[in-house]
Amino acid sequence: MASFDLAQQPHRRFNPLTGEWLLVSPHRALRPWQGQQEAPDRSQRPAYDPGCYLCPGNTRAGGIVNPPYTGTFVFDNDFAALTPDAPHGAVEVGGLLRAEAESGLARVICFSPRHDLTLPEMSTADIRGVVDVWAAQFAELGVREDINYVQIFENKGAVMGCSNPHPHGQIWAQRTVPGDPAKETVQQLAYYQQHGRTLLTDYLEIELREQTRVVIENAHWVALVPFWAAWPFETLVLPRRAVQDITQLTDAEKDAFADIIRRLTIRYDNLFLTSFPYSAGLHQRPTDGQEHPEWHLHMHFFPPLLRSATVRKFMVGYEMLANPQRDITPEYAAQRLHELPEVHYKQTGE
Amino acid sequence: MASFDLAQQPHRRFNPLTGEWLLVSPHRALRPWQGQQEAPDRSQRPAYDPGCYLCPGNTRAGGIVNPPYTGTFVFDNDFAALTPDAPHGAVEVGGLLRAEAESGLARVICFSPRHDLTLPEMSTADIRGVVDVWAAQFAELGVREDINYVQIFENKGAVMGCSNPHPHGQIWAQRTVPGDPAKETVQQLAYYQQHGRTLLTDYLEIELREQTRVVIENAHWVALVPFWAAWPFETLVLPRRAVQDITQLTDAEKDAFADIIRRLTIRYDNLFLTSFPYSAGLHQRPTDGQEHPEWHLHMHFFPPLLRSATVRKFMVGYEMLANPQRDITPEYAAQRLHELPEVHYKQTGE
Ligand SMILES: O=P(O)(O)O[C@H]1O[C@H](CO)[C@@H](O)[C@H](O)[C@H]1O
Ligand SMILES: O=P(O)(O)O[C@H]1O[C@H](CO)[C@@H](O)[C@H](O)[C@H]1O
Repeated sequence: MASFDLAQQPHRRFNPLTGEWLLVSPHRALRPWQGQQEAPDRSQRPAYDPGCYLCPGNTRAGGIVNPPYTGTFVFDNDFAALTPDAPHGAVEVGGLLRAEAESGLARVICFSPRHDLTLPEMSTADIRGVVDVWAAQFAELGVREDINYVQIFENKGAVMGCSNPHPHGQIWAQRTVPGDPAKETVQQLAYYQQHGRTLLTDYLEIELREQTRVVIENAHWVALVPFWAAWPFETLVLPRRAVQDITQLTDAEKDAFADIIRRLTIRYDNLFLTSFPYSAGLHQRPTDGQEHPEWHLHMHFFPPLLRSATVRKFMVGYEMLANPQRDITPEYAAQRLHELPEVHYKQTGE
Repeated sequence: MASFDLAQQPHRRFNPLTGEWLLVSPHRALRPWQGQQEAPDRSQRPAYDPGCYLCPGNTRAGGIVNPPYTGTFVFDNDFAALTPDAPHGAVEVGGLLRAEAESGLARVICFSPRHDLTLPEMSTADIRGVVDVWAAQFAELGVREDINYVQIFENKGAVMGCSNPHPHGQIWAQRTVPGDPAKETVQQLAYYQQHGRTLLTDYLEIELREQTRVVIENAHWVALVPFWAAWPFETLVLPRRAVQDITQLTDAEKDAFADIIRRLTIRYDNLFLTSFPYSAGLHQRPTDGQEHPEWHLHMHFFPPLLRSATVRKFMVGYEMLANPQRDITPEYAAQRLHELPEVHYKQTGE
């Protein structure tokens, strides 16, 4: 009898964090690509760009002048998708048209004064500075009555809609808990109620035993390609200790978080010898005043590239109408990332 | 008291077809765009391209020769994401690694022998030919024991991952019901059980009364921007009569379907004077042998463009980690589409 082979045969995988399925078509990785090519990011940027609205000392839209900052720098987004002062209200027609006012705020976090850097090109100490800002922002926003979820994220690269290459991330914080963290809350809570441990504690134990999807580890963190990854080189960065949010990390855990972000993103850049685009972000407990022992802080990296610096995965058609779908297996992606060196290609002059 | 204003103020809207929410930030439409620009599709293509693997008489990957077809032409995808012969099997580790074999098939449907056309440039009679193939394929695949869902779709334009501009769509048909149609089944069933009418029957009634989101109508169909649209110019194409699948349409309804597809896609092309990219597809009842009186056939159009032929909406960062988000309101998008002429811009020489 032919036996079921995850490496060769079309199959579905279940995402226990969202409760949704994904289609995997490993054999399809062989098809030729004649479609759109992306421009690889091989730009050489100056350390300071007088035309950049994020560089220290420059003037932003609306006339505000950035301070001459030397580390990180946080400000309210000049084009915030969420505003704090929105009047309450709702619309309801026949149970089918339903809308309600939403309030919140949006901030921008500059990771470095240096216009020419990205996370993988920063020192571990400087990335630790970014981790500290994330923690301080979560602490500040999380206690606010009107904020029940704090979404910290980064869009990196033009292909991910990032309109300025200056290293920066964003925070969108709001009154309601958005869809994905809400799903993850439901799933993690169900697991925690049944097992008394967080879902990701038990998942991590399986992954450390199997090792086939682990990319890198340090004393406090593991980066792996999750069994249910939808994007070709998607990763999940997990603390070994189940903490609900970033403020609960010890000093050593924060250092180790900076270390694993640096080493993972260097590998990403080294994969296709390009500044590797992605959207990445933290998932943490809702800040709704509940305890949330079920929550296990983690960071998702969703990179679009599939075959090279110029060929991306398109989540279109079938994916938009039916189901996410991937070609290369998570195991293959993990192995590729695992084998890469941890010295940035720009350093070795490749 | 300041009152709640959907046109000006950040708010959330509920999608009753999926049960999920979306963030709307109308005020943000004003922000300047300095990010990635797409190449607009203004290509002049020949009616026949000797290098195209979809043109009549040409040889495809793997050596198969296309017949000298004169209307539509259907064949099995040479790089199918789903295969019929997959051995059964499953993987399960601790309830957290879960995979199961999936079987099915993938087909390509050429809409026309003419390499230089797209749906909006075809005659209503020729689009009716495409509707007939969709119906014939659904009938053929829907009765198969091993096929429980038939996903018919089109990726149009390089920005939507379409690797060949020859007018064509696809069918992916499989053993399980994929995520989105499964969600729509749950939502439509709950509504049907409560009200005894399909969700989309009642929704359409509201939209025809309000008129603010209706783009175009004919005797049997309505195209509108749904109240919960996530993509800037997303539309929903609905038959007035609640049918579960395309094979139940009368002859007149099929003609009218072709008519509304033609008129809608001409408006799309006229919006930014470009061959308008999108992913579009039919949602129909699962072919699992059940009756599905709750199902109301519809077609989704998901186009990425936001401001012009070169500036798209990026569903990244916040959208990948938290929630879909849009800037311009569905009402504004509907009005823009509603005001456009129905003669294709190439015809008027603009
Ligand atoms: O099958 P194609 O056209 O080669 O591929 C395209 O459509 C598929 C189905 O929507 C997607 O999975 C691919 O990412 C996309 O590039
Ligand atoms: O806020 P930015 O960087 O201008 O905009 C970018 O990130 C946002 C949040 O992920 C997205 O909604 C936008 O589509 C994207 O272009």
